[in-house]
Formats: sequence, C-alpha cells, structure tokens
Amino acid sequence: MQQQLDAFFRPRSVAVIGASTKKGTIGRETVRNMLLAEFNGKVFPVNPKASVILSIKAYSTILDVPDAVDLAIVIVPKDHVKEVVAQCGEKGVKGVVVISAGFSEVGREGRKREQEVLKVVREYGMRMIGPNCFGIVNTHPDVCLNATFGKTYPMPGRIGFITQSGAMGEAIVNVAHDLGIGFSIVASIGNKADISSNDLLEYLKTDPDTDMILMYLENFGNPRNFTKIAREVVRFKPIVAVKSGRTKLGAKAASSHTGALAGLDVGVDALLEQTGVMRVDTVEELFDVAQAMTYQPLPKGNRVAVVTNAGGPGILATDALIANGMEMPSLSAATVKKLKKHISAEASFANPMDMVAGAGGREFRITLEALKNDRKYDAIVPIFVPPITIDQIEVAECIADGLAGTDKTVLACFMGVGLESAGMDQLRKRGIPAYIFPEAAAKTLSNMYKYRERMLHPRGKVRTYKVDMEKVERIVAEARDSGSDSIVGEPAIDILRAYGISAAPYRYASSAEQAVKAATALGYPVVMKINTPPILHKTEVGGVMVDLRTDKEVRSAFRTLRNRIEEHGEEGDFSVAMQKMITGGIETVMGMSTDPQFGPLIMFGLGGIYVEVMKDVSFRILPLTDQGARDMIRSLRSFPLLNGFRGAPAANQEVLVETLLRLSQLVRDFHCFSEIDINPFIASPDKKDCAAVDARFIIRPTNDQ
Amino acid sequence: MQQQLDAFFRPRSVAVIGASTKKGTIGRETVRNMLLAEFNGKVFPVNPKASVILSIKAYSTILDVPDAVDLAIVIVPKDHVKEVVAQCGEKGVKGVVVISAGFSEVGREGRKREQEVLKVVREYGMRMIGPNCFGIVNTHPDVCLNATFGKTYPMPGRIGFITQSGAMGEAIVNVAHDLGIGFSIVASIGNKADISSNDLLEYLKTDPDTDMILMYLENFGNPRNFTKIAREVVRFKPIVAVKSGRTKLGAKAASSHTGALAGLDVGVDALLEQTGVMRVDTVEELFDVAQAMTYQPLPKGNRVAVVTNAGGPGILATDALIANGMEMPSLSAATVKKLKKHISAEASFANPMDMVAGAGGREFRITLEALKNDRKYDAIVPIFVPPITIDQIEVAECIADGLAGTDKTVLACFMGVGLESAGMDQLRKRGIPAYIFPEAAAKTLSNMYKYRERMLHPRGKVRTYKVDMEKVERIVAEARDSGSDSIVGEPAIDILRAYGISAAPYRYASSAEQAVKAATALGYPVVMKINTPPILHKTEVGGVMVDLRTDKEVRSAFRTLRNRIEEHGEEGDFSVAMQKMITGGIETVMGMSTDPQFGPLIMFGLGGIYVEVMKDVSFRILPLTDQGARDMIRSLRSFPLLNGFRGAPAANQEVLVETLLRLSQLVRDFHCFSEIDINPFIASPDKKDCAAVDARFIIRPTNDQ
Repeated sequence: MQQQLDAFFRPRSVAVIGASTKKGTIGRETVRNMLLAEFNGKVFPVNPKASVILSIKAYSTILDVPDAVDLAIVIVPKDHVKEVVAQCGEKGVKGVVVISAGFSEVGREGRKREQEVLKVVREYGMRMIGPNCFGIVNTHPDVCLNATFGKTYPMPGRIGFITQSGAMGEAIVNVAHDLGIGFSIVASIGNKADISSNDLLEYLKTDPDTDMILMYLENFGNPRNFTKIAREVVRFKPIVAVKSGRTKLGAKAASSHTGALAGLDVGVDALLEQTGVMRVDTVEELFDVAQAMTYQPLPKGNRVAVVTNAGGPGILATDALIANGMEMPSLSAATVKKLKKHISAEASFANPMDMVAGAGGREFRITLEALKNDRKYDAIVPIFVPPITIDQIEVAECIADGLAGTDKTVLACFMGVGLESAGMDQLRKRGIPAYIFPEAAAKTLSNMYKYRERMLHPRGKVRTYKVDMEKVERIVAEARDSGSDSIVGEPAIDILRAYGISAAPYRYASSAEQAVKAATALGYPVVMKINTPPILHKTEVGGVMVDLRTDKEVRSAFRTLRNRIEEHGEEGDFSVAMQKMITGGIETVMGMSTDPQFGPLIMFGLGGIYVEVMKDVSFRILPLTDQGARDMIRSLRSFPLLNGFRGAPAANQEVLVETLLRLSQLVRDFHCFSEIDINPFIASPDKKDCAAVDARFIIRPTNDQ
Repeated sequence: MQQQLDAFFRPRSVAVIGASTKKGTIGRETVRNMLLAEFNGKVFPVNPKASVILSIKAYSTILDVPDAVDLAIVIVPKDHVKEVVAQCGEKGVKGVVVISAGFSEVGREGRKREQEVLKVVREYGMRMIGPNCFGIVNTHPDVCLNATFGKTYPMPGRIGFITQSGAMGEAIVNVAHDLGIGFSIVASIGNKADISSNDLLEYLKTDPDTDMILMYLENFGNPRNFTKIAREVVRFKPIVAVKSGRTKLGAKAASSHTGALAGLDVGVDALLEQTGVMRVDTVEELFDVAQAMTYQPLPKGNRVAVVTNAGGPGILATDALIANGMEMPSLSAATVKKLKKHISAEASFANPMDMVAGAGGREFRITLEALKNDRKYDAIVPIFVPPITIDQIEVAECIADGLAGTDKTVLACFMGVGLESAGMDQLRKRGIPAYIFPEAAAKTLSNMYKYRERMLHPRGKVRTYKVDMEKVERIVAEARDSGSDSIVGEPAIDILRAYGISAAPYRYASSAEQAVKAATALGYPVVMKINTPPILHKTEVGGVMVDLRTDKEVRSAFRTLRNRIEEHGEEGDFSVAMQKMITGGIETVMGMSTDPQFGPLIMFGLGGIYVEVMKDVSFRILPLTDQGARDMIRSLRSFPLLNGFRGAPAANQEVLVETLLRLSQLVRDFHCFSEIDINPFIASPDKKDCAAVDARFIIRPTNDQ
C-alpha cells in the first residue's frame, strides 16, 4: 500500500490527460499548477488536438508518451474516462487521479460508469483516487506536486489533509493559505471508488513529513475499519476532523427500545471522539485548531492565565474558557509582587490580568515573562486591542520576547485589526497563533486540552470470555428456520446465558398445576405473563401478574390470566411464562443498535423514566474495553443512583461492566443481530441479585450481513 | 431624557477639551474625526497650549469659546477632569462625554474621583457619558458626529450600537465596516457613572433613524430596570446582545436548596431571552445577525431550502440547520417538475438541492425563481463555491435576480473567496447577506427564527391575588426582632398561607397526649418531627416518624423521639412538630434565589433526584406571568412525569401555575427575602391534595435591601 501510494505522492513523471490550451479550463489550470509548483519530475500533457500546451510538447494519447509514466491525472469527459484509464493500464501507469465528475455522485448510471472504470483499474493492477475529486498535492521540496486545478498552491507545512469534498478542499486550502497554515500532503478523494480515507490515513501515519492530519469527511466507506485505523493512527499523530452529516438512526430501526433511543443522543462527535479523533464542529474551528497545533504544544493542564490591555475581551475570554471547562487560577503572590514593581498600579493584578489601555509592548513583555515562570499555569492567552497610539508590531515582538522559551501553550488574540494585520503576521512568524476573537482562542485551547486528556485517559482492555457460541448459532438458526426475524422470551434469555450473562430463567405452564410446579422450581416470589396466544401489549390487557408468593396465589393468577384472555376474545392454546421475581435493585437497560455509519453501538442507561423521559443513555462504538464500559456507566447523569444515592448501597458496577463486555463480545461474534435489547437488567449490590429479566434480539435478513 | 440625550447625539456645537496638535494622540484624532466626518455644527478645540489645531482656532479653556456649546468631549488627564467639567457647567454645556480613563475601573481612588466628577455634573444639571469610554457617533446626514478617537467612521445605517467596553466598541465598529454593516448611533458608555445603557435603550426606542439595537454588555447597573425597559423596547425594535460575564450565584447563596441550585443551570442567555433580547454567544455571531437583520426580514417559519453547486457545504448547512431546530422539507413535486426542464439531470432534486459543479448563474437563477414560489419554504440559503471557470459576480447577480421580490428570508454563502470578495460585495449590494461558511448562515437563520417565535409566543399576564401582606410583615418583624436570619417551620408555612399557597399546617405537642390531640385535629395519617431542642439533621438522628395512623402509634412515636433525643445527649425542653401526611402526588420544589445581575429568580423543579441528581430545574426572572409559569413547568425534561406518565393521572398544573404566581407576588411585595425554598410542594391530580409541606425563608440583612 505504502509503495502504491508513493506512485501518487512521489511520482517521477506525471501525464495530464485532458490537458488543454483554453484559459480558465481545468485541463489548462492543472498543467499550469504543475509547472508553477516546479514539480521535480517530468510532466506530459496529453491532448489529441494540441501539440504544445503551455510551452510543453503534448501527446495524442498516453501511449504516445516516450517515457515511463508513474501517475496520470484524468480530466476528460465522463464517457471517455474508461477508455483513457485503459490506455493508462496499457502504458504501465501505477496510479490514476480521476478529476472528471459524472460518476456515482449523480445516481445509478453514474454508479455503473464508475464500476466499469474501477474494473479496468483493477484489471491492470493500478490504483485510483477519485473520480470526482479536486486532485492531490505534495509540497515536499523534493516533490513539489500540485496536481489540482485550484487557485492556490498550499504553503509547505507538516499537516496532511484528506478531503472528501473537492469544493470544501479548495475552500480550505485557500483560507489556510491566508492564515499561514501549511500542508505536507493534500488529497481530495472524491467518490472513493478505490482509494479511501482509510488508505490515506495509513499512508500519512508513516509519512515522515506529516505531523498532524486534518480530515473533511462526509461518510465512512467502512466504519469498522475506520475506527480501527483511526485508533491506531492517533497513537502517532493527531487527527482533527470536521465530519458533516449526522447519524440517522432510529426512524428505521425503531422496532426495539434501544433502536428508538439511539437516534436521540448519539452524535457522530461522541463516537468519533472514542476513536481518539479530535472532532470540531465547523470549518472555522478546524482552522483554529490547525493554526494552534501548527505552532504550539498541547497544554499540559487546564490552568490558563489571560493578560489583556482591555477589560471587555478579557471577560469574553474568561467566559469562554470557563464555559469550555478550563480553569483560571489567580496569580501567585510572588508573581503579583514581581509585577507590581513594573506595571501601573491601575492594572488589575488578577486573572484575567487587565493592564488597562495605556499598556504597550513593555508591559506585555514584563507580565508575560512573569507568567511564563508561574507554575500555576499551563497556558497563556495574551489579548491585545491595538489603540491608535501604540505600534502593534512592537507589541507583537514584545509578546513573543516575553514568552520566549516557554513550554506553556500560548494562543494570542489581536482584536479588531483584520485577518491580514501586520501584528498578527508578526506573532505567527514568531510561532504564536493569533486569533481575532477571544472566544476562538479559548475554544481552541479547550479543544487541545480535552484532546490531550482523552489521549492520556486509559484505554482499558478488550476482554474475551469463555462462551458457548454454538448454542447461540443454534438458537439463531432455529429462529431463521421458523421464519422469525426476532428472538424473545426463553431463547433470548438462553442466548444471554450462553454468553455468561446472568439472566432469570423462564418456565412455561399450560395448566395451573404446571404453574405451581414451575414456581416451586424457580423459587418464590414469581412473575407470571401470558405466553400464548401472543399478545403485544401485555400490560394493557392485564396480562402480567407480579409478586406471586404462594401456590395458591399462582393457581389463582393462572386462572385470572386465562379469563382475561377469553374476555379479550383471543383464540388458541393458553399458556403462561414464569420467572423468579427479582426484588430490590435498580432497573438498567443495555442493548445494541446498528448505526449506518459506525456499525454496532453498545448502549447503557437506567430503566424506565431515566431512559424514556430523561433520555439519559450512553453509547459506545466497538470494540468496548473494560475502561470504556466503566466510562459508559459513569457518564450517565443518573449515575449517582447506581453509586449509592442517599445512603442506599451502591449497585455492583463490576457486574455491569462485565455484562457490557460480554454483550460486546456477543456483538463482535455475531453480525447477524441488528438490534439487541436487554431490558431490564437488574443491578444490585450483591452479584447474585444482578440479572437480566427480559431480552429481545432482532435478526438481520440473511443477505444483509 | 429624550431632550437631554439630544444634546449628545444632535448637538449644534461641540468643544473638544484636551484637543491636541500631537499626531497619534486621542486629543488630535478626536478633532480629526470630527472634521473628517464633516460634522454639521461647530467644533471648538480647547487646549491652553495651542492656538490652532488642525487649522481650527483653539481656546485656552471652554470659558473662552465665544459661542454657546451643547456638548463637550473631555480628554484631559484624570486629575483635571473635575475642573474642566466644572468649567463646562459654568459655560452652560448640556452634555459631557468623558473619554479620560482612571476612574471607577481602577479601584477605590478612581471611584472616589468619579463620584466627585459626577457631583459637579449634577450640580450644574448636566448629563455625562463615561468616563473611560470610546466616545459617541451619529451618522445621520443632518448630524455627522464622530466624537471618537477610532480609526473608522462607521458606515451610515439603521442600527444603534451601545457598548460598555470601549475596546470592544472600536473592534466592532471596524469589523462592521468591513462587512458593510452600518450604524445610526454608536455610544460607548464606559463606566456609566451617569447615563446608563437603560437610558440609551429608551432613547433609541424612539429614535426614528434606528431600526435595531446591538449591545455589548458586561453588567447591568440596575437589572430590574433593564428587564423592564428591554421588555418594552423589544416591542418596537429588536435588541441583539453579546453579554459577557456569567451569573455567579450559588457559592455565596448556597445556604438554601434553591440557592445552591441556581448557580448550576441559569445562564445569562436564558434570562436575557426572557426579556425578549436576542442573545448571541460571540462577537462573530453578533455580526452575523446584524448583517442578516440589516438586509432581510425575519423568517416566517422554520422551513428552509438549500441550493448549492457543491455537495460538501450543502451537507454542512443541512447539519447546522437541523441541529439548530430548522426543518428542510423536500421540494414540492411541482417545483421538481419545473426544474427538471432546465437543470442538468445530474443534479440532485432534493433538499439540499445539489446542482453539481457545472452549475453557474443561469442554474442558480432558474432554481431560485422556482423555490421563491414554492410555498413549502420560509427561507432560502443559496450556497456557491466558485469554480475557476465561473464568473462569481455574474452568479451573484443571477442569485439576486432569481430571488427578486421574495418575502422569504435569504442568507447566502459564498465559500472560499475571502471576506472582501467581489461576489459577496455584489450580493450585499443587492440586499442579500453573504457568509463565508454555511454554518454561520444556518446559525443566523435559526437565531432569527427563534427570535421571531419568542416574539410571537404569548407573554401571558401577571396576576395579582388578594393576600395578607400585614401578616407576612409581622412574621418577618418577629424573626428580625429575635435576631434570626431565617424563617422555618410554622411561621414559614404561615407566610405561604398568607399568600394563599396551600400548605400543610403544623401542630406542636410537648406531651404524648397533646400529640394525640394534635393528630386528631390534623387528621390521620400524620408525620412527627423533633421540634425542640433544635437539631439540624433530623433524619440522621432518626428524628422524623412518618405515616402514623393511630393514637397508639402517635403515643409510641412521641416516646421514641424523646428517647432518641436523650440518647443523643441533647438538652432543653422536648417538643414535636406534626403535620398531616400527604400521600401520593409528586414532590416538586419551588423557590426564589437572588441573582446579582438579574435580581430575584423564581425556580421550579421536581423533587429529590430530579433536582439533586438530574439538575432538572427551570428559572424565570420577574415579573412572572401565567404563561411564563406554564412554560417553566413544561420546560422541565421531567415534565412527562407531571403530565400523566404511563397512564398515571396528571398533576394539576393550574395549581402549580397559581402557586408559582403567588410565590412571585410574594417576591415582588417583599424585597427582604434573599432566598425562598418550598420543598416539597406536593403536586396531585386533585387541587385539594396539592400542598407545600415545608418552607424556608432567608432574610436579607436590613441594610442590604
């Protein structure tokens, strides 16, 4: 893979097929960009109607090119793409970038066209980026490849950028250029017919010129793969992503409890974060973070000092920092003492430190020098609002001087001076990111801090228990044979038990005497429900009797239920299902639902109103670790109820963790379930009193696995 | 007031005291700004050391000016301000704007200095803006006043802008200028020693040249006044505010349940919204909204059509719209039919409508014309990502042509072309606001929609009930006389009853037989608590006995409690307090706490875990209306529990509304309480089963009212 992608990002010769002499066309701009970037290899324009393009000899077809060609950029009309790609194959080209549009993005016919092209690519053992993309860039001085039609050649830098949308890719490259953000590699992946963002992530992981990866994503081709790869890559380099498109679960998958809930609260963000990716909400935030991480280290903690020459922005920064989970401890006594010697007594020696409007470079330098050495802070935010009377370049220099050599994270704010101000440029030249608005600096700092926290948070271990897979296979096969798309009642409980999940066993009875025998075997008290004929809303017809404590009560309950069924006009043989009644403990709900983008999600929440009214549930993508399960449980707002609220004994959390891990193992082992619902699972202080009472499995149609 | 403020914003002659000949000083820039703006009256520079400033004759003191002076701008060093302000008074000046800093913003001495200046201002019957401000502007062509030292003279427009921070004021004026946002009046109010934001709101309310008011606020001088005035002003003109600084309740006021909660969830935003002010989170959002409202009407509903020539931004816009509560219905069949005649079949005729990259001006015009006439939409967001091959000015023209005459709200997005792009400028010239990023357009549209909804939401009525104020006065006086700072137990219940709030009465007993008598009078079952000696945590020592059903149980409970007290080693006479036990119903909590910025807040939540663990409470500022009380109740996440969850009968919401209104009347009538806690108030289906069980009033120190 590494080598295959080198053909794209380190080619020795590139053919531009569909090169053009006509100004303002993609075919001409691409050639022009290759030349302006001063590509270190050979460029061969291909165009049957031109002999020279931008002073370079052009060829009718790629087959006419005399030299070997590593990479071909394809810009011909959609109906010709297949043909020229085949010629590339004949020529021995290793990689093709298809810029042409009109493929799977435009519906069924386009999809067919794309498949045909892909077939040709595979036949010749080539790889393809696109179609419907913006092209690729490698700014490394040994390469200088700009195989795009964009207006801007990105500044060299150490950020790799993967974009699914060509338009967004170009927009991002343009704005990044204005902000002084440089890229190592830019890859617009378009329809991802062959090479995916996953492939590029793996390539960038080991690319020595890339320190950080930015992604603009619209969907994941293979989410299970993405989460696996992303988790691995972030151990080496941070990934920052704007992910558009929300997860649309629920509507379709609302047949079970868990399914209906999943749509509510699971954001792509939360799930992406579990892979270790830093997810930002908007393109602006992407730039803010990229700028910061280009110049500054991650903050070692959340303690921030704000220094300002104007009260207002200081307050805005404080608000935004606190609202985003940062802290602003007051200045240490030593720092205040040091500062009072040099700074006007009118200043406020607090945090934010407001040096008032007269303050210029000297004051910033002195104050920042003192703060740099104050161990109470992990990060410093200098804010300068340029008054007419003060030279902003000098202030920028003084800010940089004052902070020279610090290992604290520094994000500056220069207000009201426009993006291209000299002061901001000067700060960036000295390695200090600069923002116009204090809120942006604050949010960025918090994003960086949270990212570091997440990276340091223990990942925990995936556990594998000894289980009885064969039994589950048998139960699923039986359900399938009987034409059922769900498993409920006893077989559902049996699946849980096969995976070592404690569950209250069922007994069935079709006579009062059988019911008494069953109750005796289960142990009193018991619960009795109508089993057949099947009734959907049992509670509404009074089809459930709880807390039956004696043989007599069981007999009487059996008769009552039979009478109710008859009154209800139901036909068929009558039987009841019985379980031991678990008293005490807290009702929880566990489950799995399938997210179209991320695949299976494990769900946990407290039962009844907490889930239904308060929507208080947590979700995790697979694989779930023990630490992940613990975090899931603790992240509930209602967690205090599990943890011994008002002196009640705490529920056994290790049992909950283990049950979630066993459920997750079941989900890993069996892709045939689209939804699982364990409701309720009773959580008690004592392990032996913890058990699932009811469960429901939805089976995926066979051709859908 | 109107007339007094006209002296500031429509003066015929202005003296600049502290005018200077030295380049780059505030004293010179202010004179220069007056001249550059072409002020329609006379300008008199005052400076004892100069005879000419910027070609105008200067005077030693204002007393030397030969003509009458309406307004003086004061820029002298802080220690001279008092003296020159006195000279202004002598001269008969009506208004002074003190730009000089070094007053209450710098601590105690400054506060003293400010009070002295204010005293002089009042002695002469003048009014003052500042000190420590950035100055004032009126762009009206009959006035052209720029009494600031800023670099930018705002563009004329119909927005009035009040800023508390001078630095933020200048920054905002600069950026607004770049975005084509114009102002009628700008007022930097600084320390607000005399004229406050409230005064200016009232002035702008009736200013014929102002359609909308922007505010940058740091605090409210008089919050009760602000909410009253703001509520009135927004009936005429929208107010949009960035309010920095968060409400810091709780830490200090944590002595009661309600107090401790208030700090958690009350944002200034929620409270400002109750006054009808549109509160935005950041300065950027302020601009986004200002730009939109300068050019466009509020959307009549939340149904949005998005049209784009690039998939990515369309998805980003969709995400942001949906996440912010907007809807995106699909195109009507008629519209699709119309469009298919003219637009490439490769386009996606959905919402967002992606016309794909080839689309130019013609496609935008045709599509927007069709959408303009589609009744399914209240707003339209065209998004254009300029490909190199298409002329963006032409596209801007076509977008404007296509939408000509529509009454739908239109916010456009032009991506990746930088703030000062020709296409964006062209759109703005044609009355269409343009944003670089789709998220900004989406968020702005949602802000506008929510604002309109809030304006249309019925306000409801403030109700006044017949109550027994004298009784409450008596109870408070007795508590004060006894040196107590709180009222609990029977007198607390009596206060509630004096205000017609249903509450379970108390009886006291100091012998078992008295207890039986009390129980008989109250009616069984009863609750019994230790009354004396006073014990703080009654439940912990087992000092509460509930559900006593017979004389015998009452006698036995009395003895048990007495024994427990003795075991506990407490001294003093023993007595118990008894109440009828209210069974069934749902525990709610009501209360009042005092916010340092907004004054009293009324609080409502469900009792126990809902308040304590789930933090599910709602707050309202005064005055509370019946509709406001209803909204408070319904805004709880746990509201379904009050509304008949799982077939249980609903609690009587009208009783809750009335109780909240009576509580609010009590708070209006008595400023002596800093906190009130009614916990629990039992809400039942039947009015007669609804009652407060316990209450606690914290009395403010007498000198603090």
